[in-house]
This record gives sequence, C-alpha cells and structure tokens, in this order.
Amino acid sequence: MSVPLVTGGEVTYAALDYAASAPALQRVWDDVAAYAPYYGSVHRGAGYLSQLSTELFEQSRAAVAEFVGCGEGDQVVFTRATTDSLNLLSAALPTGTRVYVFESEHHASLLPWRGHDVTYLDAPRSPEQAVATLESALHGAPRGPKLVCVTGASNVTGEVWPVRELARAAHRHGARIVLDAAQLAPHRPVRIGELEVDWVAFSGHKLYAPFGAGVLAGRADWLREAEPYLAGGGASRKVARRDDGGVDVEWHTNAARHEAGSPNVIGAYALASACRALTEAGFARLVAREEELLEKLRAGLAAVPEVSVLALFGDEADRVGVLSFVVDGWNSSHFAAALSAEYGIGVRDGLFCAHPLLRTLLGQEDDAPGECGAPDAEPGERSLNAVRVSFGAGTPDEHVERFVAAVTELVRDGARWGYRTEEGRCVPDREAG
Amino acid sequence: MSVPLVTGGEVTYAALDYAASAPALQRVWDDVAAYAPYYGSVHRGAGYLSQLSTELFEQSRAAVAEFVGCGEGDQVVFTRATTDSLNLLSAALPTGTRVYVFESEHHASLLPWRGHDVTYLDAPRSPEQAVATLESALHGAPRGPKLVCVTGASNVTGEVWPVRELARAAHRHGARIVLDAAQLAPHRPVRIGELEVDWVAFSGHKLYAPFGAGVLAGRADWLREAEPYLAGGGASRKVARRDDGGVDVEWHTNAARHEAGSPNVIGAYALASACRALTEAGFARLVAREEELLEKLRAGLAAVPEVSVLALFGDEADRVGVLSFVVDGWNSSHFAAALSAEYGIGVRDGLFCAHPLLRTLLGQEDDAPGECGAPDAEPGERSLNAVRVSFGAGTPDEHVERFVAAVTELVRDGARWGYRTEEGRCVPDREAG
Repeated sequence: MSVPLVTGGEVTYAALDYAASAPALQRVWDDVAAYAPYYGSVHRGAGYLSQLSTELFEQSRAAVAEFVGCGEGDQVVFTRATTDSLNLLSAALPTGTRVYVFESEHHASLLPWRGHDVTYLDAPRSPEQAVATLESALHGAPRGPKLVCVTGASNVTGEVWPVRELARAAHRHGARIVLDAAQLAPHRPVRIGELEVDWVAFSGHKLYAPFGAGVLAGRADWLREAEPYLAGGGASRKVARRDDGGVDVEWHTNAARHEAGSPNVIGAYALASACRALTEAGFARLVAREEELLEKLRAGLAAVPEVSVLALFGDEADRVGVLSFVVDGWNSSHFAAALSAEYGIGVRDGLFCAHPLLRTLLGQEDDAPGECGAPDAEPGERSLNAVRVSFGAGTPDEHVERFVAAVTELVRDGARWGYRTEEGRCVPDREAG
Repeated sequence: MSVPLVTGGEVTYAALDYAASAPALQRVWDDVAAYAPYYGSVHRGAGYLSQLSTELFEQSRAAVAEFVGCGEGDQVVFTRATTDSLNLLSAALPTGTRVYVFESEHHASLLPWRGHDVTYLDAPRSPEQAVATLESALHGAPRGPKLVCVTGASNVTGEVWPVRELARAAHRHGARIVLDAAQLAPHRPVRIGELEVDWVAFSGHKLYAPFGAGVLAGRADWLREAEPYLAGGGASRKVARRDDGGVDVEWHTNAARHEAGSPNVIGAYALASACRALTEAGFARLVAREEELLEKLRAGLAAVPEVSVLALFGDEADRVGVLSFVVDGWNSSHFAAALSAEYGIGVRDGLFCAHPLLRTLLGQEDDAPGECGAPDAEPGERSLNAVRVSFGAGTPDEHVERFVAAVTELVRDGARWGYRTEEGRCVPDREAG
C-alpha cells in the first residue's frame, strides 16, 4: 500500500500502530473472503448454509477456547472487544465484590468497575513491586468476593507484567484475577492454565482480525449466575406472559446467556482464523522475530539522546513490540505528524487511553488535560503527550529501519514542512524554510 | 452457491431466512474488500491510513444519519445490533421512566427494559387496535418520563405496524418512542422525521451488511446525560487520580460516550455501504419487487389448505417479505428440515425469539416450552412452533417458486426421507418408504 508524502512522491506505508489495531493477516482476509458466499443465519435456521454457519460459529468458539487453553468449567463468550469483555465481567461480579486495579492500566481495565468498591494501586516500578503492592493491598482485605484486573503487557510501554506471580498473590488472598490480554495475546501465548488466571479478555482488532469481535474466556460460574449482559433473543430460553400481565424469562446458562442478539459470525470466524494462524506460525518464532526488531528499534533510538523511552520497569524489562517515547523540544503530535507526512510512517500520539500512567511517566500535573482518541478533543489538549510505535507479525525490517532513520533525521534536521492544528489534529501546512 | 440434497445431486441454495440474517449485497462485499488493504487504526493514529480509516468511520456515521434522516439534535451511535441498541437506550433512560411495549415484540424489544417499570400491552388484532391500546395505556399514566418501544414490521408475521400513528399517540401523552426497525429498514424507508419517532434501532446483519455493527439513531439529549454504556477508552475524555486515591473521569458528550473501545470500522463501513446501496436502488423499486414476490408466495400457499399463515392484523394488512405458517399434521421443524434436505431451501423454524406472540398466534398454553436459537435447546422443546419464510433484495422468482412447489409437494406426498432429532435439530435419517 503506497501513500503520498507532502514532500512529493509516494512510499510504502509503514504501519507502526499495531497496538491500536493490527492489519488483518492475509490468512484472515482469505478465510473471511472464502466464507463470504456461504454466510448464513445461525442457530435455528434450518437451511444448509445456516447449519454450516452455526457450525463455523461454534467451531470458532472452540478454536478460541483451545487458543487460550480453556479447561473444564471455562467458557468463551464472544463480545465486541476487550472493553466490552471487561464491562461484561464487571456486570457479572457478585454483589459486594472488591476490585483491585493498578492505575497504570488502560482505561478499558481501569474504568469498567462501576458500582463496585475499587482500590486503585499505584503504578509499580518493577515487576516485583507490582506483586508486593498487590499483596499488601489484599493483605487484611475484608472477606467476600475480590477481583484483580491486570494487563498482560502495557499498551504504553509494552512491558510484560508478572501475570502468574500476580495470579498466585491474588489466589493466596482468595481473590480472582482477570487478565487484560489485549496487548499480550498478539505477541505471546496466553494460556489460562499456565498463567493461572481466572479469565482472559482480548480483542480481534489487535489480533489481526479486525471484524468487531472480542473474547472473554474463563470461569463459567460467576457468569452463569449473573444477570444476562444484554437482554434479548438468543440469551432467553423461554419467555412467557404472567397472569398478572408481567413477563417471566428463563435465561440460558451457557455462553449464549451473555450473547443476546444475532452473533457476529464473521467476527468470531475471523478471530478463530487468527488464533489458528498464530498457533501455526508458532509463538517461539514470533517472539524471536519480535526481539530482533525490538533490538533494532531500541538501539536506533538509544543513539538519539533527545529521545526518552518511557518505562515503568526499566530498560531490562521484558517487553512486546510496543514502545512510547518523547522527544526533547518536540510536541509529540507534531513529531508523529511529520513521521506520517514526510516518511509515510503511521504511529500514534496522545495519552493512549491510559491517562494516569502517562501522567506518572511524563511527570505531568494531575490536572493536565487528556485526550482519548475521540473526535471532539480540543487542540490545546494535546500538548503533553507521547509518541507510540508498535508492530507485530509481518512487520518488515524496512519499516523499523525507516522509522529509526526518520527519527534520527527529524531530530537532527527538523521537519521539512510547517504544521498547524486543524480540528485537534496536527496537519502539514506549508513548506518550511 | 450449490448445496447437496439428501435425495442426491445438488441445487442452488434458496436463502429464505433474510429476517434472521440477510446475505451481504455484492456491493457491500466489494466495498469491504476494496477497503481491506487500507484498514488502519482510527482516531489518534497519526498515519495516513489511520486518518483515512477515521474519516471513513465518521463518513459512515454520516451516511447512516442521512439514511434515517437525522435532524438537528439527533445522533448516530454504532452498536453491535438492534438488541444492543435497545439495551443501550434502556441503560440511558432517566430514572423512573415508564416503558410501554406490546407483548408481540421480538425479545430484543420486549426484554431490555430491566430496572424500569414496564407495561406489557396485549397483542392487538388490527393497526387501529394497536393505537387504541397504546392510547388507553398512556391515558392517565403518571407524570414523568415515558418510553414506547414498538416494532416497524413483525419478525414473525411481517406485518407493518402503524408507526406514525403510534408515535403521535405517544407524543400526545408526553411519551417518547423508539422504533425497532430491524425488520422494517431492509424493506421500507425508515425516516425519523416522517415516522415522527424519537429513535430508530436496526442491525447490519439484517440490512445486507453482516459485519457486527448496528445502530441507535435519534435524539441526543437523554444519551448525552446518561452514564456511558460501556466504560473504557474512547468514551473517556479525561481520567485522573484524585488525592484520595480514587479516579475522576470526564466522559465525552457526543456519540463516542457510548462507543467505548476501538470501533468496529469495517462493520460501520459495511453498514453505510448497504444504506447507500438501498437508497440508490430506491425503495419504491424494492417495495414493488417485494410485493410481486409476496403475491406469488401468498397465492401459492393459499392453494394449500393445510397451510395456515400466521397474522395478527388479517390478510389485508401491509406486510414486508416475512411470513410464518404452520402445516396441519406437520411438526414445523420436520417441515423445515425437509425443505432444506430435499429442496435446498433455507427457512427457519421455531418461536423466532417472540415467544408470547407465537403463543398468541398458535393458541398455545403459556407454559408451553419455547426455544430461542441458542445451541442448548432441548429436542422436546420444539414441538409447538412455526416455519418462517423471508426474503429481500436480490431474491429471484425461482426461490419463491421452488418454495411454493416444495410446500405443495411435501403436503401432498410427504417427505421422501425419514428424519430424527439430533442435538435438538431435525436431521435426515434414512430413505423413507
């Protein structure tokens, strides 16, 4: 895919915003395109294609269950995305559940726990400190249901969190734990049993399957007992008027309980296709390749002293292909706009829906304005932010090399064009100099 | 698309289950396929393709707004589907809202009103009775916010409801009204202004765009004031730790408020593509073609005295291309299975997620078992149900003709194969006779 440059000509687009949404794998597109003519209404459709689609939908559920290593007593619920998955879990928590979450989480993990007693934990400065912080918060916590929600890999720093150790700490204190695997699943194997977590949540659009489906997988017990997430057809097993004019509803007790409405069959099928493709590619190979690119990226940025890479756990921490930084003397929006307009490189600028973490990392005041990707953010709100570069399966060396060369050149020579803010976005304005 | 017959050979699949999920229009597939290589992360992505995707996403919103005739003060929120749209509206109703809904609604309209005071209205036997029933229920209702939820066209009988008259009745009594247009929108123009409704909800998968996106469009005021539907990134404008350790959140006030998480860009784009395609085809032409097929269908079924077509409003009522029936001496599941296995025709059997309506139409006892499309329904639960045939844009004469011929032949000669129940589904077992 070629994109135009403001400086003239075209260049192959370097997609380095995988942490927001990863392009579909060719295999996923091919699978979806091959399925297209066979698409049919699922469940009670009596026709051949309806039965085929129903089977593909349930096979997709099984493929996801296998991908995350679901055991007995676990189930896979299809949702929109991680945000939806965690909102579903929040709605399914028993009354009185206490929730523990680090302030360093993405808003999708930080905010869904409305109506519960939430303890926000300070961002730790090492994996060990994360475990100690959680231990200390859970120590002496009142009896009753407790849930810990933690990310597998930070969407800002890419740092990998000590999930199994946190899970063990949670369980030692009688708490359950849900893993926000939105950033981890595309990069590392996410196995419920090995990580010892109770649930995992992740999104198709970050797992090379951008067709509107995500997953909550794990323990079925609380989900089975909870009120249905959405009320409607598919979730309801039997509905009848009562003599008093009201309505009695008997709900399903399996995954369908929380999947009211016609399921997103194509989304689920695409997600399952991606799960199979990643498994077949092999995470050992994917991780090795990612390490190679990360090494190149970090070495390149280390050679530019004006660049400060953001980290909670320090340089030596394990990380996935996600890295954020600020550049001395540059507004991050300006920097990201120049990378796009002058080099055809797509990164992201902002606070990455993790405002408290960014404020901690950037040393901002708590009343500094934030933005979160929505179209009505104001121009003035973008002055204190960062640039994020992220990649994944299929990223060629050239993209990372071009990125490093562009950063080096921009810092050394400045942008070749002028930029201005337009509708909250930094856009090329005129040729500079 | 050819499908195998149990009687040997193959035949072109006759998809006659549009009311559950309509196959994508070729134009929609083409648009999605053409967009595929350009797919990028939306919103704060600084790259060229991110900006393109962000623009396409917002253009899709504008296209849907145009399709339903949004006016000043209206907004379009992208959801999963109609069920999700109505659950969103339910969550956004002011405290103390009284909800009025006919028992004849699909469960998606009947059940989402949890936590509100709901009045279930008896199924009317004519459009005039529907209006009178609503008038009478609203007459003398207590002051305070009120909502009427009504379908545009029944998912069971295909009958068109007197939406504007119901809207006027609602407004006369200070109530607002939401239109469940899941079945109406694929067949008739759905214009907020002309129908005088406050909101419309519909699904992509019934509107030839099965990519996991639906819509709630209409008045922004209650939505703007409500708690965000999902909590997470995208909906949050600013998030900050408080001195006391808690977290303050400032939410967006536009559609993003209820769209937390990365948006389903492909779903929204596909839906907008379908809206454009239907508008360009012209509803006058679509309706004329539908009338032609309906005429053929009804005349064919009328010639088989064993077939009883289900209707609330009688034979003369306006209806879309959706029709349900029972056959004397036949279990509907058996009938639908034979249509599929012996004729390659895909219809639907069951209670169509409208249990109270089916019981009214079939004269069943209120404790008769129901089923609602989920995979764990029991075999014994399917004995009292109906067959539904439904079609739409692109349905050829041959499908309807084959269907009528098949019904005639099955009733006259019986099925050529034996059938048995397997996992709650009626499947071919052995050659009969």
